Amino acid sequence: MSILVQKFGGTSVASVGHIERVARRILKARSEGHGVVVVVSAMGDMTDRLDDLAREVDYIKPESRRELDVLLSTGEQVTIALLSMVLMKMGCKARSYTGGQVRILTDSAYSRARIQEIDTTKLRADIEAGTVAVVAGFQGVDNEGDITTFGRGGSDTTAVALAAVLKADECQIFTDVEGVFTTDPRVVEGARCLEKITYEEMLELASLGSGVLHSRAVEFASKYEVPLRVLSSFEHLPGTLITNEDMDMEQPIISGIAFTRDEAKLTVLGVQDVPGIASRILGPISDANIEVDMIVQNVGADMSTDFTFTVSRDDYDETLQILKIVSDDIDAREVSGDNKIAKLSIVGVGMRSHAGVASKMFQVLAEESINILMISTSEIKISVVIAEKYLELAARALHSAFDLANDNGKLA
Amino acid sequence: MSILVQKFGGTSVASVGHIERVARRILKARSEGHGVVVVVSAMGDMTDRLDDLAREVDYIKPESRRELDVLLSTGEQVTIALLSMVLMKMGCKARSYTGGQVRILTDSAYSRARIQEIDTTKLRADIEAGTVAVVAGFQGVDNEGDITTFGRGGSDTTAVALAAVLKADECQIFTDVEGVFTTDPRVVEGARCLEKITYEEMLELASLGSGVLHSRAVEFASKYEVPLRVLSSFEHLPGTLITNEDMDMEQPIISGIAFTRDEAKLTVLGVQDVPGIASRILGPISDANIEVDMIVQNVGADMSTDFTFTVSRDDYDETLQILKIVSDDIDAREVSGDNKIAKLSIVGVGMRSHAGVASKMFQVLAEESINILMISTSEIKISVVIAEKYLELAARALHSAFDLANDNGKLA
Repeated sequence: MSILVQKFGGTSVASVGHIERVARRILKARSEGHGVVVVVSAMGDMTDRLDDLAREVDYIKPESRRELDVLLSTGEQVTIALLSMVLMKMGCKARSYTGGQVRILTDSAYSRARIQEIDTTKLRADIEAGTVAVVAGFQGVDNEGDITTFGRGGSDTTAVALAAVLKADECQIFTDVEGVFTTDPRVVEGARCLEKITYEEMLELASLGSGVLHSRAVEFASKYEVPLRVLSSFEHLPGTLITNEDMDMEQPIISGIAFTRDEAKLTVLGVQDVPGIASRILGPISDANIEVDMIVQNVGADMSTDFTFTVSRDDYDETLQILKIVSDDIDAREVSGDNKIAKLSIVGVGMRSHAGVASKMFQVLAEESINILMISTSEIKISVVIAEKYLELAARALHSAFDLANDNGKLA
Repeated sequence: MSILVQKFGGTSVASVGHIERVARRILKARSEGHGVVVVVSAMGDMTDRLDDLAREVDYIKPESRRELDVLLSTGEQVTIALLSMVLMKMGCKARSYTGGQVRILTDSAYSRARIQEIDTTKLRADIEAGTVAVVAGFQGVDNEGDITTFGRGGSDTTAVALAAVLKADECQIFTDVEGVFTTDPRVVEGARCLEKITYEEMLELASLGSGVLHSRAVEFASKYEVPLRVLSSFEHLPGTLITNEDMDMEQPIISGIAFTRDEAKLTVLGVQDVPGIASRILGPISDANIEVDMIVQNVGADMSTDFTFTVSRDDYDETLQILKIVSDDIDAREVSGDNKIAKLSIVGVGMRSHAGVASKMFQVLAEESINILMISTSEIKISVVIAEKYLELAARALHSAFDLANDNGKLA
C-alpha cells in the first residue's frame, strides 16, 4: 500500500470546523487507497496563547526550558485528540499519538531538539489495520522521558521525518496557500504556482522568507529524498512538488523570486584593513544574539575599508548602539545605517549552467533606475539589497524579464 | 525528612498571579523543612473549555474516550509547567511530571481509570535533592502508554495516592474554603470549621454534597490511612484534619449537617407487591444511565405497595417518562413526582453509641412543622427528604439543637 504523510498547520486546524474540513481531506486520501499518517500543529493562535502564559511568568532561563517544552507541547496534543475524534465520527478508524507515544526520540536540547530516532512499530501497525495515525507535530521525548520541542517549523520537520522512516510515497504539507509561487502573488500579479521545484531551490526560497516551508524540513527531505508537496488545505489543487533535480526534464533558468522587507543595513566606514577586524566588529553583535545575514567588505586604496552587513530590522537600533562602541575601539571613521532596505533574490538551479543571469538581473534593475546597495551570490541564487521603496517595482520587472508568469523560462 | 503532598485545585491556580501565591505556600512548607510533592489541577475553567471543544466535535462514544483523555489531560500539563517555572523564578528547584512521566500506572478505563501502581523513583530522588516535584493531577498512563484520566475529583485522588505510596506525613488539599464546616456557612450563620473529623464522617459528608472533597479520595485516604487536611489556599489557617477515629478523644455525637437541593422524588403508586417488582421498576431507569439515590418501599395491607425513589433533579423529566411506560407494563395505579425537594443529613460517628439521635432529629423538625417525606439511615448518618422550601429552616434548627456552633456537642 502506498503511504502518505499529511501535515496540517495551525491555520488549517484553527477550529473544530476547520478540523472537520481537514478530516475530509484525509478521508479522500484514504478512499483513494493510501495508508495515511497525519501530523498536526496546535490550533490557530494556541501556541501564542501558551507562550503568553510563559511570558507572564517571565522566567525564560536555561533551567526553565524543560518546563517551557512541557507547556508548549500541550497545543498539538489538543489537536490530535480532536482530529481523531472527528475522524471517528466520520466513520474512519483513528488513533492519536503525542511525540513521546510514537517515540520520536530526540536529544535533550529543549525548545530546539533534534530527532535521533523514530520507532515506527505503532504507526506501521495502524497503517496495516487501516487506522489513521494522528501524530502531534513539533515534539518528541528524550532518553529520560522528558518532553522536547523542535522550535519554529517543527511540525514540518516531524512530518518529513515520519515520511522518511516510513518510506512514504509523499509528504504533503497542507498550508493556507496554493503552493510555492514564482514570487509573492500579493506583489506581482502574474505570479504563478510552480508545479515542481528542487530541494535546493526550495531551500534558498525558504531561507529567503517565502514562508511556506521551514528550511529545516526541506533539508531533512533533501537528505532522505522524501518527495515533498506543498498544497492548499482549502482548495483541491495539485500544489507544488519538491524533489531532486530531474535530469530528464527541462529546467527553468530561474524558478522564483523571493524577498524580505524586514532587513536593515549597517556600515562601519574607514576601518583599518588588518586581519581579525571582521571578528572584532561582528563578535559583539553575535554576543548580543543578533543574527547577521549578508556581509560585504570592500578594500579601498588607502588600506582602509568599509564593512557592511545586514541584520533583521528589529535588531537595527541595538546593533547601531553596539557598533558605535565598537567603532571607537577599532578607531573607525564613522558608522552609518539604513533600515529602509529590502533583500530580493532570484533562485534557480538552471543558473548553474547559465552565465549571464546575474548581468541580466542587474541590467533589468538598472533599466528601472534601481540602485543596488549590496550583492551576494550562491550557486543557485543571486541576492541584492535595494531601497525598500523599489521592492515591488523590482520584483515585477524581474518576474516579467525572466518570463516567470508563462512557465517559459525553460531551456530548449 | 517529613514529606508533605500538597494539592491545589483549579481555582487556586486560575491565573499566573494565583500560581505565584500557590508557589509561596509551597516555599513556606519547604522553609519549614518539609520535603514537598505538589499535585495541581487544570487552571480555572480550562477543563471546561477543553470539554467544550469535545462537545463541539459531538462524538462521545466508547471508542473516542481514549481521545477525550488525551485532550483533557493537557489542562493539568499546562499548570505543572507554569508552576515549576514560577518556583524556579523564586529560587526553588522544581521539576514537572505528567502522570505518565511519574508513571502513575492505571487500568485502561478511559475517563474513569483506577490507579494500579505508582513508581516513586523520580519523586523520591527529587525529595532527596530538595527539588519540588510538581505532578499533574487527574491523569495516569496504562500499560500501553495511553493517557488515562480519573474522572471527577481526580486530582484529589492523585494527591492521596502519592501520599500513600510516599508514606507522606500529611496530604494537604488546598481549596477555596477554610476547611470542612459543620454545615454550609452560607445557610447557617453559626456554621463552624471543624478541627478534626473521621474518614467515615467525611465520606458521608462528601457523598452528600458538601463538595469539599471527592469521596473517592477520602476512601483512598481511609484505606491507606493517609492523614488528610483540607485547608484554604487563600488564608493561613489550620483547616480540618481528616484521620482515623481517635479513641482517646472526646467524640462529638454529630459532626456535621449536609444537604443537597438538586433532588427529585418519584413514586409509583399501587404496585403489586410480588418478587422482582423493584427490578422491573428500576431496571429501565438504570438502563437509561440515571442514578437512583434513596429508595423506599412500604407494604400496604392489600398486597399492593407504593414504591418511591429519588434521582438527580436534572433526570426528573426523563425518569417520569420512563416510569409512565413502566407503570402501564406492571399495571400500577399511577405515577406521581415532586422535583421541589431537598435531602438533609446529619452525620457523626458518635451516633453509633448513642440511641436517640434520630428521634431528636425528627422532634426538632416536627417542632418547626416540617414534614418528612422520606427517611434513610446508615450507621453514622440519618438522611431525610423534605420540601425544598424548608431546607434552610431545618438546617438552622438542627445546627442549633445539636449545638454545633459551640463545639459542645461532645460526650462528657
